[in-house]
Amino acid sequence: MTKKKIFILGSTGSIGTGTLDVIRLHRNLFKVTGLTANNNIDLLLKQIDEFNPEYIVVNNPEAANKIKNLLPEGIKFLSEQKGLITATREAEYDILLSALVGFAGLQPTIEGIKRGKRIALANKETLVVAGEIITQLAAKYNSELIPVDSEHSAIFQCLAGEDNKEVEKLILTASGGPFFGKSKKELESVTVAEALNHPNWNMGNKVTIDSATMMNKGLEMIEAHWLFNLPPNKIDVTVHPQSIIHSMVQFVDGSIKAQLSQPDMRLPIQYALTYPERKPSTFTNTKLTEIETLSFHKPDFSTFECLQLAFDVLETGGTAPAILNAANEIAVERFLNNRISFSSIPTIIKKALDNIEVKTAPELETIIECDTLTREFFED
Amino acid sequence: MTKKKIFILGSTGSIGTGTLDVIRLHRNLFKVTGLTANNNIDLLLKQIDEFNPEYIVVNNPEAANKIKNLLPEGIKFLSEQKGLITATREAEYDILLSALVGFAGLQPTIEGIKRGKRIALANKETLVVAGEIITQLAAKYNSELIPVDSEHSAIFQCLAGEDNKEVEKLILTASGGPFFGKSKKELESVTVAEALNHPNWNMGNKVTIDSATMMNKGLEMIEAHWLFNLPPNKIDVTVHPQSIIHSMVQFVDGSIKAQLSQPDMRLPIQYALTYPERKPSTFTNTKLTEIETLSFHKPDFSTFECLQLAFDVLETGGTAPAILNAANEIAVERFLNNRISFSSIPTIIKKALDNIEVKTAPELETIIECDTLTREFFED
Repeated sequence: MTKKKIFILGSTGSIGTGTLDVIRLHRNLFKVTGLTANNNIDLLLKQIDEFNPEYIVVNNPEAANKIKNLLPEGIKFLSEQKGLITATREAEYDILLSALVGFAGLQPTIEGIKRGKRIALANKETLVVAGEIITQLAAKYNSELIPVDSEHSAIFQCLAGEDNKEVEKLILTASGGPFFGKSKKELESVTVAEALNHPNWNMGNKVTIDSATMMNKGLEMIEAHWLFNLPPNKIDVTVHPQSIIHSMVQFVDGSIKAQLSQPDMRLPIQYALTYPERKPSTFTNTKLTEIETLSFHKPDFSTFECLQLAFDVLETGGTAPAILNAANEIAVERFLNNRISFSSIPTIIKKALDNIEVKTAPELETIIECDTLTREFFED
Repeated sequence: MTKKKIFILGSTGSIGTGTLDVIRLHRNLFKVTGLTANNNIDLLLKQIDEFNPEYIVVNNPEAANKIKNLLPEGIKFLSEQKGLITATREAEYDILLSALVGFAGLQPTIEGIKRGKRIALANKETLVVAGEIITQLAAKYNSELIPVDSEHSAIFQCLAGEDNKEVEKLILTASGGPFFGKSKKELESVTVAEALNHPNWNMGNKVTIDSATMMNKGLEMIEAHWLFNLPPNKIDVTVHPQSIIHSMVQFVDGSIKAQLSQPDMRLPIQYALTYPERKPSTFTNTKLTEIETLSFHKPDFSTFECLQLAFDVLETGGTAPAILNAANEIAVERFLNNRISFSSIPTIIKKALDNIEVKTAPELETIIECDTLTREFFED
């Protein structure tokens, strides 16, 4: 059997390292042909040594300068956003694991789609800001979009063998993050350290803060809309603090299907690589009788304003999700740098949505412009 | 669109009346061509009036005598086991809804299988006593066996789009019945009324007692073995008192899929009739945020001995499940008639298994003989 070739966009992050764990377990099935990192060149060098890829891209120019002379001979080395685009356009691969954080993942992912490759999609922003373009391109070039997010993977698994015309609604589960149950007043004084202390998942800083504001679930709701071609009123969010049920699908007959496991991202990553097959792994060993209790609560849209804002921009459409996404990236960065309070995150996003013009049915260029405009709007 | 013709074996029981509810809701999809009852001729007459079937069978000879002259002209009327066999052999139908209680369901179901019809299977004993014969016949005559039991329907739904070679294990959920958590000592003094008071499901008396002893789950485990072609060591039982998750499938990659809903048998009945499609219905409207908590516990095999006995006979194979089934029917009947204590139910079954010879690889005749032998063994 020929091995499937994997190009990993963002190999040093939590999804990237998880993907390499999966590949380690199934060396007979997979081969790495490309790795990319932003800053973490120490880890990238170790990964290069172990997996021997053909292509390397380092996004950060300083990091790129540092690693340049440390690379094995013959490896194709590129840098910055341009390098990411070139590598995804030229390298050999069957599956593009798209795990860059933020807007930077969009264009390299499009390169993979245009080549008709399978996209194992962990980059939320790709669908959040450009869902319509991406899904149309994927259909045109016959590229499979397989979700890696645990929630979307759960829905994707629940929809296997089902017809999405028979879906009544998708039920995205949310852990509720570290601040579930807190009041608006209490949120005003939370610290960065508190916000980074997620109860169930070990993720990067940006995603962890998004989880604390519940923007993460809002972005996932927008993603779900595009991935599964369902209107916003067919997408619900339910708080499920144990993060065991990763999401559910309710069908028109009232039947609900759920996918569950102990939280471990390597499970949905592996599924995205092996789909439609499943391969043995021991990343999770879920014993419900040891967990004992699963609980469910309604989300608090008025306290977690980011969740409401995400529902709103999906209804608005056009470039509104791109404005929300860019403003959120800026707000989260400022919060992480202790420049603004936790409660100011939705305030900043609202300010952007109130001040930046929303364009309808945008081309990719318009979306990129809108992203730039939003970032400029907040420049110091 | 031509309507699908449904023959209902056992139309006055809880599954039968539920099936007629489903047909009422979808009169554009289904038409009743046969109804059968044991004793309840009042209800049967109402059903005949409403659904206008071509065939009627009444199993109990006295009831048959009573109804004979009350039937509309032109209807084909038959009685007793022979009548059930003739009707299922001769009547027109696309789907045979097999919901007779006990061993009596076996031979009429086989008639449907031999005609290559879809069998919507609610009669546990068919697979429990003759699983090997039934599954081989179904394969030979290209007859679809679609489970109606909520647990097996859940597994069947979770396996849609999946490969059963990739199943790690089936997890049958059990409510635990009215006596979950009780000790062996406490079980000695339970009354018939207490045993009939099931917390979640409204079912016939036999099934309700089987649920209290957990024999029901044992029989379902044997059924699951045959329906899904998986060895006993790949079938687990988990107590889940809320009966919201109807069962689960764990795959080799560690992913678990579950099917859930408020308990209502009309949901799996409808699925068995409409499969592979799903049709809108409002039998259940499950709101997990109102249920709030789902819990899971290990079953207590030493207190609920019937469950262990069922696992044992599946390992033994041959006619052992038929002996267990017949002895259990007798024991439950005696308990319902206040002739024996609740704790004597497993004692009677063990006595049968210790005294009646198990035959390997039995033909249908051997199984029927074994059933008769077991019943004779306990004759007063």
